Amino acid sequence: MTKYSFLDDYSEGAHPNILKALSDTNMVQQTAYGDDAYSQEARDLLRQHMGESNPDIWFVASGTLANILAISSALRSHEAVVAAASGHIVVRETGAIEATGHKIINVPPIHGKLTPKSITAALDANAHFPHMAKPRLVYISNATEVGTVYTKSELVALSKLCKARGLLLLLDGARLGAALSADKNDLTLEDIADLTDIFWMGGTKVGALFGEAIVIPNPKLREEFNFHIKQRDALLAKGRILGLQFRELFRDGLYFDLARHSNDMARRLSDGITKAGYSFVPETETNQLFPILPDDLIDHLKGHFDFYVWEPFDASSSVTRLVTSWATDEERVDEFVSEVQKFTS
Amino acid sequence: MTKYSFLDDYSEGAHPNILKALSDTNMVQQTAYGDDAYSQEARDLLRQHMGESNPDIWFVASGTLANILAISSALRSHEAVVAAASGHIVVRETGAIEATGHKIINVPPIHGKLTPKSITAALDANAHFPHMAKPRLVYISNATEVGTVYTKSELVALSKLCKARGLLLLLDGARLGAALSADKNDLTLEDIADLTDIFWMGGTKVGALFGEAIVIPNPKLREEFNFHIKQRDALLAKGRILGLQFRELFRDGLYFDLARHSNDMARRLSDGITKAGYSFVPETETNQLFPILPDDLIDHLKGHFDFYVWEPFDASSSVTRLVTSWATDEERVDEFVSEVQKFTS
Amino acid sequence: MTKYSFLDDYSEGAHPNILKALSDTNMVQQTAYGDDAYSQEARDLLRQHMGESNPDIWFVASGTLANILAISSALRSHEAVVAAASGHIVVRETGAIEATGHKIINVPPIHGKLTPKSITAALDANAHFPHMAKPRLVYISNATEVGTVYTKSELVALSKLCKARGLLLLLDGARLGAALSADKNDLTLEDIADLTDIFWMGGTKVGALFGEAIVIPNPKLREEFNFHIKQRDALLAKGRILGLQFRELFRDGLYFDLARHSNDMARRLSDGITKAGYSFVPETETNQLFPILPDDLIDHLKGHFDFYVWEPFDASSSVTRLVTSWATDEERVDEFVSEVQKFTS
Amino acid sequence: MTKYSFLDDYSEGAHPNILKALSDTNMVQQTAYGDDAYSQEARDLLRQHMGESNPDIWFVASGTLANILAISSALRSHEAVVAAASGHIVVRETGAIEATGHKIINVPPIHGKLTPKSITAALDANAHFPHMAKPRLVYISNATEVGTVYTKSELVALSKLCKARGLLLLLDGARLGAALSADKNDLTLEDIADLTDIFWMGGTKVGALFGEAIVIPNPKLREEFNFHIKQRDALLAKGRILGLQFRELFRDGLYFDLARHSNDMARRLSDGITKAGYSFVPETETNQLFPILPDDLIDHLKGHFDFYVWEPFDASSSVTRLVTSWATDEERVDEFVSEVQKFTS
Repeated sequence: MTKYSFLDDYSEGAHPNILKALSDTNMVQQTAYGDDAYSQEARDLLRQHMGESNPDIWFVASGTLANILAISSALRSHEAVVAAASGHIVVRETGAIEATGHKIINVPPIHGKLTPKSITAALDANAHFPHMAKPRLVYISNATEVGTVYTKSELVALSKLCKARGLLLLLDGARLGAALSADKNDLTLEDIADLTDIFWMGGTKVGALFGEAIVIPNPKLREEFNFHIKQRDALLAKGRILGLQFRELFRDGLYFDLARHSNDMARRLSDGITKAGYSFVPETETNQLFPILPDDLIDHLKGHFDFYVWEPFDASSSVTRLVTSWATDEERVDEFVSEVQKFTS
Repeated sequence: MTKYSFLDDYSEGAHPNILKALSDTNMVQQTAYGDDAYSQEARDLLRQHMGESNPDIWFVASGTLANILAISSALRSHEAVVAAASGHIVVRETGAIEATGHKIINVPPIHGKLTPKSITAALDANAHFPHMAKPRLVYISNATEVGTVYTKSELVALSKLCKARGLLLLLDGARLGAALSADKNDLTLEDIADLTDIFWMGGTKVGALFGEAIVIPNPKLREEFNFHIKQRDALLAKGRILGLQFRELFRDGLYFDLARHSNDMARRLSDGITKAGYSFVPETETNQLFPILPDDLIDHLKGHFDFYVWEPFDASSSVTRLVTSWATDEERVDEFVSEVQKFTS
Repeated sequence: MTKYSFLDDYSEGAHPNILKALSDTNMVQQTAYGDDAYSQEARDLLRQHMGESNPDIWFVASGTLANILAISSALRSHEAVVAAASGHIVVRETGAIEATGHKIINVPPIHGKLTPKSITAALDANAHFPHMAKPRLVYISNATEVGTVYTKSELVALSKLCKARGLLLLLDGARLGAALSADKNDLTLEDIADLTDIFWMGGTKVGALFGEAIVIPNPKLREEFNFHIKQRDALLAKGRILGLQFRELFRDGLYFDLARHSNDMARRLSDGITKAGYSFVPETETNQLFPILPDDLIDHLKGHFDFYVWEPFDASSSVTRLVTSWATDEERVDEFVSEVQKFTS
Repeated sequence: MTKYSFLDDYSEGAHPNILKALSDTNMVQQTAYGDDAYSQEARDLLRQHMGESNPDIWFVASGTLANILAISSALRSHEAVVAAASGHIVVRETGAIEATGHKIINVPPIHGKLTPKSITAALDANAHFPHMAKPRLVYISNATEVGTVYTKSELVALSKLCKARGLLLLLDGARLGAALSADKNDLTLEDIADLTDIFWMGGTKVGALFGEAIVIPNPKLREEFNFHIKQRDALLAKGRILGLQFRELFRDGLYFDLARHSNDMARRLSDGITKAGYSFVPETETNQLFPILPDDLIDHLKGHFDFYVWEPFDASSSVTRLVTSWATDEERVDEFVSEVQKFTS
């Protein structure tokens, strides 16, 4: 990998504070399976952002596991998930949710998002009971898989609908840091804890080696959740290293600083590409960018950088995907923009 | 239920021949779990229609079980099913396939059917391996859930595509009798045994009390299938009563006679309604009819008959569903048509 | 099958009353999927035996399905079943319960039965939470797989323990008729409805063509049970034929009469064999007999009758299994005894 | 945790070489999901120990996941696992294997081990097909859950039986390092690759932060294994940190050195406790010790050390469990022995 990569936000290791904390605590003996002191400190730090909800918090190894746990612990076998057709659980988890026995009802997304209207339509089309699985949990991502974010009023509307219709609301926050640090964002972690039944926050994409934090505001969903974590093996014997990473991320706001850096780098890229005359689908809101570029420019850029060609746009241009991260080097961003502008002018 | 019902094709009991055979054989002791003489006779009768394929044949209690068995015995956990979004396994089996751990990839149907083009598009959209479940089995219904049938050239094309792409082909024949007796049909049971890997034929909707016959032309899918039947409890202790019913249905072509009656009654209804000036979506090909009727006519007819109002068509009319069966009374059909024509003229 | 069979209690068809009722009602149109008039009549007849509990009642196609439904609808994925190692779900259902995702904790049986002591020992050995699955449901059979029955005091003791330890109690009544008609029995259907959370009563082994009745005294277990029935396809489109059979069985006590006949035939066999000097493991309590016979006598009897050689007893004798049924012919019983006595004297 | 802990072998972090490697490579961009340079280096190092078998190798996050993957990717739904009743998958994984749909047939262990005889007995008792799940995979652990090891002749005998009976052999090597470094051991990694179909080697208990290596000698089991890894989310986005840790462990034999240290510390403890007059069940072979100690001595030791009281032995003594690790401090071992000897003399 000699070319600079904008493929994803997990091509580097971890923020140095995390490596230092691992070193500093390495030979201290700690209780296994998440009952260690560092996980407790991390939970305390996270709960300071959650207001009254005082949620249960679990640190698990990865994101698909977080989705598996949230869904399979909450649902009976006849209950289904409602999700955008673009949702990570629909198109990037190798059928992991179905492998736990649950149907996912696909809803056409609007820029990666669900709306009360689109959910209501799915409920109406899935009401021939008991011949149809019962919709019971709504899955959303923030930021979405196309980098867009939910505003507070949008999330409030979803939450109201869910309560009115007896649906649980799960928010996949693999990139929640980027969402909460977006210019367009007006949500806080406290809002999210108030408006959802269960959500999780990614560490992997915000400077951790790995690890995600599952937060459970709804007390009913907390019951015997620990059994599920063990059954799916989402928690490590040395759970301390999960807790320690979140302690570092939330000690002095590092989590938000790193997410903001990735957004800043995305905006810098986005502004430069826009100046060169190109547009985006959808508009850039977080650290994923989807510029529409001429195929010959793409060929040129591929000589210097790694990034995805997402899908054809027309006969001579394509939608591409660039991702920035907590570790993205500003100089390389400027080089990319410079190559685009040179080629175009 | 005092009004005459066109709700479905399972509102009556069984053809008298079946009841008579049950009586005649009642006190004969037979081996349990499908190893009885009647099941063997029924298999022999069915195989006479299957040409060289010499398939394994199992009689099971019901249709969703037949789908569960065909799919869960054939697939590994990472393998997915490709099906029309209107498919029975998608919208009428309460997530039964997902409950066995398998994802269903939904394809937009064309009059209830799949085409090589629509399947290929689904394969292309589900090729980001191993992040996506692997499409491995194509599920079709004949007749479809909207009463349409596959022609031989259509089925040949699907079969070729499946072979070329390493896909298994499963045909749900809950209403295969009606399909094979349709005017438009040019397929034989032998064709179906040649062109699919596994299929099943409904007895419930063609004059049996209950029971479906699973036919397995593909030798690889036959391996240890009996374990799956037992695990899902699809076979009865008194398997004799499943075999006996199929023996009666296939002894002198009763299966085809009964299916033809249901199609004839459907055409009689359809012709009468057409003459009164109404149209259908889609056109009537088997024993399910979907006339578009004015809402006030529907109200009137509901005073005399039971049938489904399927979905709104426009502000003052709706798509309805009428189903005829092996037992449908021609006089009642004529009464229905007469009510439609009286109301309209 | 030319020899007379004592292999099982499902080698014949159905009691003539059932065949007659099928004929009498055959052309009456009825609502599908269990909402028919006959199923309602059957539920009313059954509830007359259940006292205050006023349970939900569902008629399903077969016994393994009844167990799958009772267990998979009641448990979350981390919850386990406690069962005798000889239980039907452990050794005769091809892993059907595990296929729904649930562990079965095996308990050494005492003549096929569980006791408060043996259950408590299993709970103690499975308490290292959350590393062990949580015992949540106790499964018992009455009559058991070796033909023994629970007395009222035994069932009361199990029920108390279950309530005290937060366990659900499921009773598999595939042969409940035989149990309730046993000389040793002091339980009523009402007792069973009072003492269990969910149970089911077999029709297959008491003169029905097929069909089992699931009875749900515990209101919590009733919630959305219908979805599970549909998902596992336990209910038939023509659910009327399930309901109709139970209506006939419970109209004038036929169910108990037929069960008593099978027990009477068993006692007649048992008495005759005992007189010839042979013993049983365990003692005969219902319609399954386990005589220990010399191997040369077994060879002789095999020339005239079908029955199972269960397991070797010593170098020259084996435990055999004989089963009598509602249809067992008294003359054939006497012939069997006569052959035993001739050979022995 | 102020007392010194002999609770387990995962109370500390990682060997310093691993932390250093994480630091050294931290900002290098690498391909995600295991396609990085470090994982490739680690695979090459491991394969040097495997002789001709040239197995596929996957690095996954944890041990229960390794078992889930090995079993659920290899078996069809009607196939069962044969395991010792003391096996980790039976008693410490919260029903994780059953949650993937597979039955485990429990075999009475002999010092934690299976033998051809005990397996054959289980096969004989589970042969009533298709009413019983089909035994298809034998699960063993080396070292076992009670610290014992398999000799080469024992493993050869199991392997032969498995081949003869059409069974797959899976070896859980959570503590394989300790086993291969035991005095009694005469197996090599190459032997294990020759004699098993699939096995995995723990990193967590031999100085890694976390991570296990799945090794697949049997080519049939390699097919599309990557889909399963993704579906169960066993592989991390930053798979590099799994590969990197195994690269360090296998670069200069560190894995074996660390395992040997844990065994040396166990023997030192064991020798000291033996000298004080106490015995063990079973004898100490690796880094888990099960001394039988008087309850008052246990109370005394608990003031200074953490360890498990495993089970009562008699009225005044108990079996305890002590575990040593790659990080165990020799001075603390000597202190423990000294306390035992002081108390006893």
